[in-house]
Amino acid sequence: MKAEIIAVGTELLLGQIVNTNARYLSQKLASLGIDVYYQTVVGDNAARLRKAIEIGRSRADLLVFTGGLGPTQDDLTKDVLADYLGRGLYIHASTMERIEQLFGSRGLHMVESNRRQANMIEGCDAIDNAAGLAVGNGLEADGMLYLLLPGPPKEMMPMIDGPGEAWLRSKLSEELPLYSRLLKFAGIGESNLEARLIDLIEAQTDPTIAPYAKEGEVAVRVSTKAGSLAEAQRKIDDVVDQIKTRIGEHLYAKEDIPLEEAVVKLLRASRRKLACAESCSGGLLAELVTNVPGSSGEFVGGVVTYTNEMKHLLLGIPMTQLEGEGAPGAISESTAALMAERVRQLADTDFGVSLTGVAGPSESEGKPVGLVYFAIAERGKKTLVHTTHLSGDRGMIRLRAVKATLYRLWQALREQ
Amino acid sequence: MKAEIIAVGTELLLGQIVNTNARYLSQKLASLGIDVYYQTVVGDNAARLRKAIEIGRSRADLLVFTGGLGPTQDDLTKDVLADYLGRGLYIHASTMERIEQLFGSRGLHMVESNRRQANMIEGCDAIDNAAGLAVGNGLEADGMLYLLLPGPPKEMMPMIDGPGEAWLRSKLSEELPLYSRLLKFAGIGESNLEARLIDLIEAQTDPTIAPYAKEGEVAVRVSTKAGSLAEAQRKIDDVVDQIKTRIGEHLYAKEDIPLEEAVVKLLRASRRKLACAESCSGGLLAELVTNVPGSSGEFVGGVVTYTNEMKHLLLGIPMTQLEGEGAPGAISESTAALMAERVRQLADTDFGVSLTGVAGPSESEGKPVGLVYFAIAERGKKTLVHTTHLSGDRGMIRLRAVKATLYRLWQALREQ
Repeated sequence: MKAEIIAVGTELLLGQIVNTNARYLSQKLASLGIDVYYQTVVGDNAARLRKAIEIGRSRADLLVFTGGLGPTQDDLTKDVLADYLGRGLYIHASTMERIEQLFGSRGLHMVESNRRQANMIEGCDAIDNAAGLAVGNGLEADGMLYLLLPGPPKEMMPMIDGPGEAWLRSKLSEELPLYSRLLKFAGIGESNLEARLIDLIEAQTDPTIAPYAKEGEVAVRVSTKAGSLAEAQRKIDDVVDQIKTRIGEHLYAKEDIPLEEAVVKLLRASRRKLACAESCSGGLLAELVTNVPGSSGEFVGGVVTYTNEMKHLLLGIPMTQLEGEGAPGAISESTAALMAERVRQLADTDFGVSLTGVAGPSESEGKPVGLVYFAIAERGKKTLVHTTHLSGDRGMIRLRAVKATLYRLWQALREQ
Repeated sequence: MKAEIIAVGTELLLGQIVNTNARYLSQKLASLGIDVYYQTVVGDNAARLRKAIEIGRSRADLLVFTGGLGPTQDDLTKDVLADYLGRGLYIHASTMERIEQLFGSRGLHMVESNRRQANMIEGCDAIDNAAGLAVGNGLEADGMLYLLLPGPPKEMMPMIDGPGEAWLRSKLSEELPLYSRLLKFAGIGESNLEARLIDLIEAQTDPTIAPYAKEGEVAVRVSTKAGSLAEAQRKIDDVVDQIKTRIGEHLYAKEDIPLEEAVVKLLRASRRKLACAESCSGGLLAELVTNVPGSSGEFVGGVVTYTNEMKHLLLGIPMTQLEGEGAPGAISESTAALMAERVRQLADTDFGVSLTGVAGPSESEGKPVGLVYFAIAERGKKTLVHTTHLSGDRGMIRLRAVKATLYRLWQALREQ
């Protein structure tokens, strides 16, 4: 079954809001084994909406509409589809009662246009809207399925999760659901990952293997349609094993969690604590780690020593290490090591990590943009210092530097 | 001029990511006086992409593509469009040099597929990609305009803002340009702002007034189509004055800069320095301020004291202030004040700011989620402490808390 999602709303075309509904509906449809081949956004305009319906019918079996079910003049979806199909509209009695009751109970005069939210296209099933007034419509006609849902996410989401899904399932006797597993990788770039999996990617039929980059990390989605969870897991496990043979050392999770969450979990499991000292990343590492709920058990905090003075004042690093003739400088292996060791001692934690480098856009200490040193200090062990050369703009360099540091910490924790 | 935005990427159809690019491009095109009539999303499939191009050509004058410019097998946009138009592809020399240099400088072997990022459709203009490797293509052919941009937002956004916009402007001689001014507000929520401007918003014709929320701040875009910059400025200035009469105390910029940048500018102008002590915000304030290039002149760094121990170890705050019978607790006005004062003294800066509160999802010290205290300490002056009750999830509370702190600091700097 092929589906197209049609989001109706001029505010989308003006760029006033982001189309989160398309994403939610796509995930939901995929979980039901329905392939989404197109997503379209069209404005509150009858002629163009009609055209979109026409095109949709030529290339999909199911059209899912979101938006245009409200009471205002611009809300056209039911009217346009009914007209296109040559069908009438009638009022859904129980929805009308709810609307009247709502206005009555507030002592408000009901503006006539509110009635339109109770409209049903002849022959459709009502899709209940628990969080709003506009009733959804589910219609099967001439070999096509049409599902009309409201625009506001707080109404649309429970509707597709509940009565919407039930309606679709009742129409889809033969679809096999799509099962996916998401693998997360760190310490490897997207091109490199693809290159190392190229034989699997080129040969793929079922399951499918799809790599993509996401916020400084890379992911691979392995998907298959199967009759049962057990069968799907068997097929997926086989591919995952083949992927692990090639790049297993970079695989940090088999679910969609960020690298920092995997690090916090490992710290939690071994009852260790972490502190950090950041220079070029300016607080980003601390922010990402503290984004993980409950991380205060593992992460105590740290310092942002953005200037040489602060490295001296907060971490006790001698100015002669940082400035002057022959000094290694703030951006050096030895400074990275000192920062990690000092913050570990100060906070009395098991691990201390540090980052110092050149985020850009200008060079610093005569060193190039993208050069970053980071260190992992561990109680009772030798401090490990790493160097990397990163590309991208300032923000991307900072994010990649933090992810690189977290990857090395993850490796160190795994080896214990 | 009518435009269609075509986003290419199977990850969009699977619902793995949200199509934020469509929003960004829509806003940009509107600001150039270009009407977006459709947005389409299609997968990494040559046949369907080709179909989408065909449909796009039938209903728009400008097709803006995002996605599918990368090095992998799934990246097809240039290939499919070139094939559709019967044109060849050639390598853009300077992009190829950059790619080779990047791999060379890291001592890495360049995977052949990376070359594809330097592809140019015959007859097109290169659209420079400062933040990535794939060169954009701008093509005028047979009365149509085609603009091909990469998918990753961090690459796409600067490209459409810079060379992409310049290319479009060069092609749009007859459009009455849309002039806009973006006003940025802080310390006021979106509904509140709209309520205070409701008379202007309801009565608007030209210029148009559009409020919207963006990353913890609120903005109002005032737009008009006019024959000249002078005429546009006159019309816009008039509306801006009316807005200022109503909510001027919250207006921190008349350009699209984040609040932290306005704060850094004020610090720079008065040659003052800032340090921060963060608890619940976990490094986010430091990260946002250091995102502002050149901020090391104004922001020296600070501490992330995520646990009570760290507040004691790094800032010297007595444990009796933080824990035990009758202690005010970490989340209190007095602790916020102490944190701001101590970090200011430690770093020897003009200002110290602090945040301590409950980001959620659970309560802390018996205090409710969303309660945040923040303080502004200034050399030689009385420390100001503020309290706020924020809503939203953990991430939203942290972001709003930081923005609330920056707003009060901005106010304090403005009053000098």
